[in-house]
Amino acid sequence: MICHMDNRAVVLLSGGLDSATTLAIANKDGFRCHALSFEYGQRHNIEIESAKKVARAIGVASHVISTIDLGAWGGSALTDDIEVPKNGEDDGIPVTYVPARNTIFLSHALGFAEAIDARDIFIGVNAVDYSGYPDCRGEFIEAFQTMANLATKAGVEGDPITIHVPLLELSKVEIIKRGLELGVDYSMTQSCYDPHQDGTPCARCDACRLRDAALAEVINCE
Amino acid sequence: MICHMDNRAVVLLSGGLDSATTLAIANKDGFRCHALSFEYGQRHNIEIESAKKVARAIGVASHVISTIDLGAWGGSALTDDIEVPKNGEDDGIPVTYVPARNTIFLSHALGFAEAIDARDIFIGVNAVDYSGYPDCRGEFIEAFQTMANLATKAGVEGDPITIHVPLLELSKVEIIKRGLELGVDYSMTQSCYDPHQDGTPCARCDACRLRDAALAEVINCE
Repeated sequence: MICHMDNRAVVLLSGGLDSATTLAIANKDGFRCHALSFEYGQRHNIEIESAKKVARAIGVASHVISTIDLGAWGGSALTDDIEVPKNGEDDGIPVTYVPARNTIFLSHALGFAEAIDARDIFIGVNAVDYSGYPDCRGEFIEAFQTMANLATKAGVEGDPITIHVPLLELSKVEIIKRGLELGVDYSMTQSCYDPHQDGTPCARCDACRLRDAALAEVINCE
Repeated sequence: MICHMDNRAVVLLSGGLDSATTLAIANKDGFRCHALSFEYGQRHNIEIESAKKVARAIGVASHVISTIDLGAWGGSALTDDIEVPKNGEDDGIPVTYVPARNTIFLSHALGFAEAIDARDIFIGVNAVDYSGYPDCRGEFIEAFQTMANLATKAGVEGDPITIHVPLLELSKVEIIKRGLELGVDYSMTQSCYDPHQDGTPCARCDACRLRDAALAEVINCE
């Protein structure tokens, strides 16, 4: 058993509300956080700017921005010219789903973790107020962790990787309350699937609706 | 159960001997193959040129070359300035191991498969004459497939993804014999970890040693 004295962790950071809260939690739990963000052919690059602000504000050991090409084969309203729905939640898996996105993000996080000898990866997936994406469920995360420990030196050498999902069972309101306790400045975060050219949120897509409703509820409870 | 009439498959194609043989097998088995290669900060780009030649020669429905950044955090002799060993095989996991590489490659293949509505992914991993990489073993592939079917629309909708590993239990000699039967032109392939500037193989790294010994054995047997 190798001892990881400095408690380093890789934290996936999109610049949204959930990942900002996840980073604050990992930080509070005593991990030295290495944030990982992606440029993946999103419609707008405002996400990366939000991620940089959040990483700076909460404090990270490093912040890697990795370029990957998820637009090469299309298949999502977030990377293609498919229109983002603005009329409330659909049934089933929505068009904003990016094929295998969390699998791809976690795989890169796994490579980063191995390279810096970290054994802990944080991702802000949430199975409660989620948008119907299959890769936001606990059973997916468990299967990823099992696979990760067969894929890597760390796993083979008996010093396994843990995928942490601190938001998994929290409602959006609970996530925001937890973040506010930890001092997260949500004005830095960006959740919108389809922001205007100037970076302001559309206020009508699923992500905006969930966020705005939860923020309103938190404010009304105080 | 949705019927996939055109039998489309995603085939990971590095331009090496194993992936060329895998593509030929998938093609022979009646799949319409969509090849996927990566530019991932390799030392030399000759791999991509080999992949293009092989894809053209065997015949594919499409060939996507995806740019991903595996060099951002280092950790391997294949992407860093670490010297590639030339003195025979080491014990344990060698420095040419790229952290989580097959996990990352398969994750992107999974996204591609979902986007084109394919249910079959081929990868040329091999557990016999392999170089000690943990992500070349059957148990890793099985765990990946389990995870993939929890991660994706296809899996959730009961029409699962299969990860095919036709070379898993073959020796290098058996792989080459199978490829020759299928008409693979191995002069197009590129296996070397550290080719010279002009693209010729070093003939001394692990990959060259395994390849050259197997080719010599096949020739001597004929």
